[in-house]
Amino acid sequence: MADKKVPESTISRLFIYLREVTELAKLNIRTISSSELGERTNLSDAQVRKDLGYFGQFGVSGSGYAVKELKEALEKILGRDKTLKVALLGAGRLGAALLSYAGFGKDGLEIVAAFDRDPRKIGKETAGVTIQGIDRIAEEVRKNDISIAVLAVPAGAAQEVADVVTGAGVECLLNFAPVSLNVPENVKVKDVDLSRELAILSYFALKNNSNGETG
Amino acid sequence: MADKKVPESTISRLFIYLREVTELAKLNIRTISSSELGERTNLSDAQVRKDLGYFGQFGVSGSGYAVKELKEALEKILGRDKTLKVALLGAGRLGAALLSYAGFGKDGLEIVAAFDRDPRKIGKETAGVTIQGIDRIAEEVRKNDISIAVLAVPAGAAQEVADVVTGAGVECLLNFAPVSLNVPENVKVKDVDLSRELAILSYFALKNNSNGETG
Repeated sequence: MADKKVPESTISRLFIYLREVTELAKLNIRTISSSELGERTNLSDAQVRKDLGYFGQFGVSGSGYAVKELKEALEKILGRDKTLKVALLGAGRLGAALLSYAGFGKDGLEIVAAFDRDPRKIGKETAGVTIQGIDRIAEEVRKNDISIAVLAVPAGAAQEVADVVTGAGVECLLNFAPVSLNVPENVKVKDVDLSRELAILSYFALKNNSNGETG
Repeated sequence: MADKKVPESTISRLFIYLREVTELAKLNIRTISSSELGERTNLSDAQVRKDLGYFGQFGVSGSGYAVKELKEALEKILGRDKTLKVALLGAGRLGAALLSYAGFGKDGLEIVAAFDRDPRKIGKETAGVTIQGIDRIAEEVRKNDISIAVLAVPAGAAQEVADVVTGAGVECLLNFAPVSLNVPENVKVKDVDLSRELAILSYFALKNNSNGETG
């Protein structure tokens, strides 16, 4: 079912479609056309049809997509019907905020282990999870069947920690450290780099400011 | 100078190049070839040359890019030589964390105003900024020459707040609310949606788990 050629941008949009059809289902709306769904998500109907087309037929001829069916299919594709186990690497300010982030549970993810290098943090408990030393990573990953690691460590430690978790078999990383990680080809990294987002916005802010000169 | 056709993905990579050449400059390395820069950033040398080619000539024939010159040019393109004024919308837990986020200053941005709807928050001070009521947005944006707004409000309030700030002339939004904003065509929105990143990772985690079946 999971076609390897599905682009990441499509996966990202599936999540947006899921949010919309979840709203529609709450309102007891039964069908939605690709153009209506596109309108609600600022996308063209062609884009909607192409994205959903990767995953089969959700269409009800003439009246659009069946909302309930589409919602359940998207939940399955995005793993909402399962709980994936997550390890948190780094229990500093950001790590602590993530441990208490309610969204993880809502998104079908559970932080089952947390690690830090700082001996003062090891053994302490945050949001029901006991912080362990990073030497325990490999064993915990295997024991708990952890499939996602969240890297909330300083930039200088990120590559080393990434090596340890990927070496232990974790293939999906959410990286908050502002560095480009070198990982094996089978490993998927998502970077959440606030500095980079701000840099992009700064570029556009400056460009808008100077439109009078260049436009 | 700012060509309108530069893709956002290029801007995003400029930021990564800047990080690398800043490191190189610290090490007193004077030149770097496109292939070396590509290796350090996990990109092809063709990609590096294409990205930098949008902005002119940084090359020193035969020996690669001049590190110092490239660093200064990238800083200028990304606005690091200026301070841009930022408004924070929403002073809840996330907003408070952002107010104390050291990265803003480092990235050449300054949060000069913060707004919240909650009367209990209005008038209080966080990280040197006094929280004001949202009815004050338009006036403060104009008075302080604010060019970027950070939306750290609940999903249900995001569109309304976006309407107010874009109406006041702000053209760049960093949106933490998990909704797709409708904005005028001249407005640039960057979404930081942790739920979406997690959904994408979940998809890949599930795909990896089922590789035995599909591969």
